[in-house]
Amino acid sequence: MSVDRRTFLERTAAATAALAWPSAPPTTRRSDDLAPIFTEIEKRHDEAVSRLQEWIRQPSIAAENRGVNEGCELTMRLLKDAGFDQVTKIPSDGQPGIFATLDAGAPRTLGLYFMYPPWDAALVDRPGLGKVIMGRGAVNQKGPEATFLAALHAIRAAGRKPPLNFVLVAEGEEEIGSPHFPQIVRRPEVQAALRRVAGIFMPSAAQASDGQVTITLGAKGVIECELVSSGERWGRGPKKDIHSSNKARVDSPAWHLVEALATLVSPDGNEPAIDGYADKARALSASEKAMVATAARRLDEAVAKREMGVDHWVHDVSWVEALERLVSRPTVNIEGLVGGYTGPGGKTILPHRAVAKLDLRLVPDMTAAESLAALKAHLAKRGFGDIEVNMTGGYDPTTTPGDAALIKAQVAVYRRSGIDPVILPRIAGSWPGYVFTGDPLRLPAGHFGLGHGSGAHAPDEYYVIESQNAAVRGIDGAARSYVEYLYEVARG
Amino acid sequence: MSVDRRTFLERTAAATAALAWPSAPPTTRRSDDLAPIFTEIEKRHDEAVSRLQEWIRQPSIAAENRGVNEGCELTMRLLKDAGFDQVTKIPSDGQPGIFATLDAGAPRTLGLYFMYPPWDAALVDRPGLGKVIMGRGAVNQKGPEATFLAALHAIRAAGRKPPLNFVLVAEGEEEIGSPHFPQIVRRPEVQAALRRVAGIFMPSAAQASDGQVTITLGAKGVIECELVSSGERWGRGPKKDIHSSNKARVDSPAWHLVEALATLVSPDGNEPAIDGYADKARALSASEKAMVATAARRLDEAVAKREMGVDHWVHDVSWVEALERLVSRPTVNIEGLVGGYTGPGGKTILPHRAVAKLDLRLVPDMTAAESLAALKAHLAKRGFGDIEVNMTGGYDPTTTPGDAALIKAQVAVYRRSGIDPVILPRIAGSWPGYVFTGDPLRLPAGHFGLGHGSGAHAPDEYYVIESQNAAVRGIDGAARSYVEYLYEVARG
Repeated sequence: MSVDRRTFLERTAAATAALAWPSAPPTTRRSDDLAPIFTEIEKRHDEAVSRLQEWIRQPSIAAENRGVNEGCELTMRLLKDAGFDQVTKIPSDGQPGIFATLDAGAPRTLGLYFMYPPWDAALVDRPGLGKVIMGRGAVNQKGPEATFLAALHAIRAAGRKPPLNFVLVAEGEEEIGSPHFPQIVRRPEVQAALRRVAGIFMPSAAQASDGQVTITLGAKGVIECELVSSGERWGRGPKKDIHSSNKARVDSPAWHLVEALATLVSPDGNEPAIDGYADKARALSASEKAMVATAARRLDEAVAKREMGVDHWVHDVSWVEALERLVSRPTVNIEGLVGGYTGPGGKTILPHRAVAKLDLRLVPDMTAAESLAALKAHLAKRGFGDIEVNMTGGYDPTTTPGDAALIKAQVAVYRRSGIDPVILPRIAGSWPGYVFTGDPLRLPAGHFGLGHGSGAHAPDEYYVIESQNAAVRGIDGAARSYVEYLYEVARG
Repeated sequence: MSVDRRTFLERTAAATAALAWPSAPPTTRRSDDLAPIFTEIEKRHDEAVSRLQEWIRQPSIAAENRGVNEGCELTMRLLKDAGFDQVTKIPSDGQPGIFATLDAGAPRTLGLYFMYPPWDAALVDRPGLGKVIMGRGAVNQKGPEATFLAALHAIRAAGRKPPLNFVLVAEGEEEIGSPHFPQIVRRPEVQAALRRVAGIFMPSAAQASDGQVTITLGAKGVIECELVSSGERWGRGPKKDIHSSNKARVDSPAWHLVEALATLVSPDGNEPAIDGYADKARALSASEKAMVATAARRLDEAVAKREMGVDHWVHDVSWVEALERLVSRPTVNIEGLVGGYTGPGGKTILPHRAVAKLDLRLVPDMTAAESLAALKAHLAKRGFGDIEVNMTGGYDPTTTPGDAALIKAQVAVYRRSGIDPVILPRIAGSWPGYVFTGDPLRLPAGHFGLGHGSGAHAPDEYYVIESQNAAVRGIDGAARSYVEYLYEVARG
């Protein structure tokens, strides 16, 4: 049963009105007694949920250029409310980013990476999980980000200053491959601020549905692109949709695309077959393999399969091989196919244009620039040079050493919470960590946070607000984990 | 400049109100003096255009199950208005058909095949052509059909009875492959009525933009189908859309579809490669080849290419070969591709489902049933047996002898109009003529009509109302051609 929205809003509005927003006086209490902060987290639960709902509901769909400005403004307001003293919108050739700092007068400074993707925010009961918030952005990443802000609110409400200063950069284009994020991060004032930080952290919901946590020491790179086959560009086939009976004498841009696509992968669709694409892909080291083997013993294969609705891994490989593939193999994936008539039933046309939307995942030492060049050269060599390759975004892989202070702090906080984290060499997904971990900054960068959510980018994306499972943290428990993490890094 | 719609409707409403609708008394004038009928055609021009606009505007989209009932009712009213004395709606498991008769007390009876596809009806000036009516159905086939009704109105207004009795069958599902048309035609009362007819004729706009006319002695058969690849059915890949990073370990139903599609045609996308599919395809006979050679000399290759926006034929074949292929080759065409994310930009998902919409064109002696079975067997043999083949419609090829009385009458009328028609063994498009030309009726069946239109099924489908080109008939000239044809068949 979903919470009635009006009732919920009335409740949270009342809760918010009751709060005074004090300045943050230094306090004489022991700064590592976090109990008063945890009390504030619980008191401000409804406020935190309400903030998250407002944020998720704000559409900011970079691909459709819809609502991104409003999404940026709202994110900036939420940051100011959470105590950031300087919050600046950073224009780019695409959607704007955000640069924000919070000077707590602390000896250390932590970098934060935020993103503000779209959409919607229904509160629903989900059997076995508890009350969850559903909508695009719920777990990836507004849920964890808003919960981190809730942690800052709680610290302030408890009369404390944060134990760290913060430098935050945010972008609105992560889901289309962060094409303009380097423009934002590489501005001189942002680089200057980032040179002072101990590392970069992105709030996340690291718990699986069974409560287990996985730390990843990096991420694959990615290329998102459209392959466009058209009669205009090909010089064969029609320049507009024509009656399908003409197939007997007219070339088909749709078949041309299908034939080109079929050359990009092995016949089972599983191994990239782009010439030279994976030449620089680095195999897992012995220690990385050991990490994966340990992870495979500790992670539950059945849970992973059930959560994705998958009965078999590719080639029916074992669980450890599936994990090895996940962290070490470059991929070529079809995100979408669209061409000609796409409505119900059929329509007797020979379409003049067809499009495949692909994403390619890259591992060290592949780079986005070299991989894109390999794709284009591969197509050209096989007579598909006319097919447009429109890269909409992408970036290089990112890696952080397992012995970085930020990672050690993560492990420490998880262990104190009774969780022995699984550690993997990298996540199969992508985030533009390379702007921090690569030249010139060479910062450690990674995700942290208790809590659980799933379905990033899928219609049923959710983030757990109130957990039914004692092993899985709800929003308040997640906020507590951020507080503990900040104090751990400050102590470090 | 398009005619202002309100002005136009006011004009035609006034014209229509001025008409009294007399019963049709026998007349003592010579029955083959067609001049009074031709006068009525001109007098009733606005009325005829208005009728056509009303008809085209009525949506009846079989694929979307939208407006077909209203389209059927309107078609029935238009038939009654044109003098059909018995007009019955024939239910089928799909959209209803229409069975109508007009008993003029004439010695001969002619069969008519109508269809009532969708959409819209703007009157616009089109440079080089004149005033045209645009919209789905404009030329395929409401334009010619409404013009045929205008001919009947003119005959009656001139105080005549039609020189032939009529038996009409109409359907609303032609554009999705007429899946239920046999149910309509094979009803006992319809079969009984059709056994009395001299043959079947479908009003069409047979003139090319240069005025040339092509008579076709048959049509290819067709299968329209969707190929659906899904994780559910495959048992591999996900059962819902999941994050694209999982491609490294999860099979992709979209790649599975692409690989399956690539096996259906030659690497250039031009020759069917389905096992056994074309085994029964009959090559052109010597006389058919001669027909095509003559046609190639007389038809303008440049015009054909320009009208379709095509620079090259497949394999860069000659004009005569392109025509031979058009009339003699079975095809496998992609009408549309749709799967996963289809909006602007990209979205990092691994879709659980992807669909290709295909049409397959068949030549004698292929049949729809055998071709569908060949497609399914081909897929199963190659490990794609899980891919659903949903046939939405289709039927066998149709052929009519060149020496049938109906064809001879067509040639005679065209020649009297100063046009020496090109004759081709068959049209590359499809219509369900096999229900008339096949067992048990074995009737001659074909299209006839002066006038011009183009772009069937494309967004800019049009039918010429007032022609700028003396060689091309507008709607009145087309109506005159129907009158002449009816009298020619009556004389036969």
